[in-house]
Amino acid sequence: MLERINNLGYAVESVEAASDFYRVSFGVEPGASETVEEQGIVARMFRVGDSMIELIEPTHPDSPVGRFLAKRGEGFHHVAFEVGDIEATLAELKKHGVELVDSEPKVGARGALTAFLHPKGAFGVLTELVELPDRGR
Amino acid sequence: MLERINNLGYAVESVEAASDFYRVSFGVEPGASETVEEQGIVARMFRVGDSMIELIEPTHPDSPVGRFLAKRGEGFHHVAFEVGDIEATLAELKKHGVELVDSEPKVGARGALTAFLHPKGAFGVLTELVELPDRGR
Repeated sequence: MLERINNLGYAVESVEAASDFYRVSFGVEPGASETVEEQGIVARMFRVGDSMIELIEPTHPDSPVGRFLAKRGEGFHHVAFEVGDIEATLAELKKHGVELVDSEPKVGARGALTAFLHPKGAFGVLTELVELPDRGR
Repeated sequence: MLERINNLGYAVESVEAASDFYRVSFGVEPGASETVEEQGIVARMFRVGDSMIELIEPTHPDSPVGRFLAKRGEGFHHVAFEVGDIEATLAELKKHGVELVDSEPKVGARGALTAFLHPKGAFGVLTELVELPDRGR
């Protein structure tokens, strides 16, 4: 049911500084910065194979990523796995009593459906499920 | 130069418990447990698309992963990126003053060459580089 690592999210103080690091050191080409006000983040992504690395900077300290940075410092924030049928996956997780942040999928960027498991429910790893649109369902 | 996410490492108290979680909740099939004495770990892997998730349990508390668990608890431990030429990548990183754990590649499992960047050198993310063997070089 886990088809692919869609993205890894890294929480950083500055997406510009982190983008420069990955561009200069590894020759990757991060995309444009994107501000997502409702999540309180500025994000920039770059591709590694079939997956993306998402650099995430909080727009203000009192946002989830701002609080994450204050508590844990820069580093890994989340992993997002692509699944074929997010509703079925969530139903399975609920059946097994897995702790979820989102019990129902939300509509995310470009029409993807997404839901987070609670890190407590996944051995300390903040885990996102993503069902991409246009899968012909 | 970053060709693929080879694996994500998760530090866990019990690879058996974590394997059961991923098998039952997501239908993945973790491989056999492998003990790597010189690293002080027991590891089990499962595939997600082109990448692997590596569940890592310390063999004793006074090992790098044991100390990691004592300090941070269970969760994301490292990401490993495949590169085409690890020597060239390390030379580039040194040129830019990036902090490294391994300034020269080590020979790892199945003849792969590996080297770790220090998390301080990569925005808090423990980052491993992997050059796979049999690339016809």
